[in-house]
Amino acid sequence: MKINAPFVEKILTKFIQEELGKFGYSRGILGLSGGLDSTVCAFLASKTLGPESVIALLMPYGDTFGGDIDDAEEVVRSLGLGSRVINIAPMVDSYFKDHPTDNKILIGNKMARERMSILYDYSAREGALILGTSNKTELLLGYGTIHGDMACAINPLGDLYKTQVRALAHHLGIPERIQTKAPTAGLWEGQTDEGELGMTYENVDKLLYQMVDKRLTAKEAIASGFEKEMVERVVSLMKNSEFKRKLPPIAKLSERTVGHDFLYPYDRER
Amino acid sequence: MKINAPFVEKILTKFIQEELGKFGYSRGILGLSGGLDSTVCAFLASKTLGPESVIALLMPYGDTFGGDIDDAEEVVRSLGLGSRVINIAPMVDSYFKDHPTDNKILIGNKMARERMSILYDYSAREGALILGTSNKTELLLGYGTIHGDMACAINPLGDLYKTQVRALAHHLGIPERIQTKAPTAGLWEGQTDEGELGMTYENVDKLLYQMVDKRLTAKEAIASGFEKEMVERVVSLMKNSEFKRKLPPIAKLSERTVGHDFLYPYDRER
Repeated sequence: MKINAPFVEKILTKFIQEELGKFGYSRGILGLSGGLDSTVCAFLASKTLGPESVIALLMPYGDTFGGDIDDAEEVVRSLGLGSRVINIAPMVDSYFKDHPTDNKILIGNKMARERMSILYDYSAREGALILGTSNKTELLLGYGTIHGDMACAINPLGDLYKTQVRALAHHLGIPERIQTKAPTAGLWEGQTDEGELGMTYENVDKLLYQMVDKRLTAKEAIASGFEKEMVERVVSLMKNSEFKRKLPPIAKLSERTVGHDFLYPYDRER
Repeated sequence: MKINAPFVEKILTKFIQEELGKFGYSRGILGLSGGLDSTVCAFLASKTLGPESVIALLMPYGDTFGGDIDDAEEVVRSLGLGSRVINIAPMVDSYFKDHPTDNKILIGNKMARERMSILYDYSAREGALILGTSNKTELLLGYGTIHGDMACAINPLGDLYKTQVRALAHHLGIPERIQTKAPTAGLWEGQTDEGELGMTYENVDKLLYQMVDKRLTAKEAIASGFEKEMVERVVSLMKNSEFKRKLPPIAKLSERTVGHDFLYPYDRER
């Protein structure tokens, strides 16, 4: 679980550079929430590409979560990134006016997808590749919106557990306030990831590391001291979010099918 | 290229039934444009699940493409599907008011992603699984919007070329008008797929079949009689749309990484 932060930094900056090159881009763009993950991603991108080649989109819903926007703006200022602030309230409100709901998950998902849609629009306008900010904990638990915050062109942080992102953040010297504040998806006032998951990142990361990286079965994890209830919940979250980590299944009918056995563009070089 | 339509119908209805079962759903939902692909998908879903278990969302942009909406409504009526009409203009206009553009691709992509977002919202509200309608031609050429019309939970039509979908449509007895009208993404007035691609579906499907299913190289395809210019254009479209058929790359740092070697939920049954 312990990372060699300078080495990870080296790998990830190289990854960003190489992947952008493959896609033929020299600029990156990301949604900057003022939270830990997007800030770490912004720092990595800025180190790799230079701050002038990184665009941060700040996409608040109206005036809510003012603290996060302040943090995001501090990151933009201190790194010298290009940035735009786009309020998503007009688009989101237009929809819910005719489709009212109290369901916070529905509202949160619509907001995440609106942000995705804006990010892709700006990516095309600016010729900048979208850098994802989902970490390994979120990806494994499915704690994110498919076609929302999980959507990106490349994902530098996807193989780091949240607690490892925190260690990298410390090494990169991101603002202290962002390092220490409670992680939140920012979907409603007072929401915290750990409150909603009912587990601390420290605990769940330890368990995920044992089960995923070290291939412990649920039984073995329980025998080694993890709470049964937590193990079962984590297994169920992983299982139920499988679809978020896969492409949609296609019914196979032919000799070569997208997603089955056609996995690369044919005959690239000839 | 010739399909055994009754057999394909059998495979695809079974596919829809089995995949819904895996996800624990008994109802399906789809965006119905009034075009060929979504109509065929609606017919297949209705045959599999019963019309009362299929929800069709009609999502026009204002009053444009009135003919398509009429066609979609005829499909809804004739099959007896559940349906809702949702005008996407308020949400889309809210965005472009502050971000004006003449770029039809940008506008079309925003519209496609708004429809996706609404489809996923209704999927959650109604407990109905999203059926995709992208065909093999579109998937291979990248003729669709990532996180837009390409987004779905399962895709019954993804291994059928457009001309094969047409043959299936004929077998299923979908309305004559829908079978014969010019395919269009409906992004602007007068747009047709074939006009925009600069190729007829009949020609491009033959070429794709030879290159993808039969593994002809570009050189061999040209030697066998396909126009050099068309072959080069198709190879370039396939190559440049690779990212739409893949999950975003994640930098590998650990022993097991999402999308690399963690591909299934661990320890499902124990």
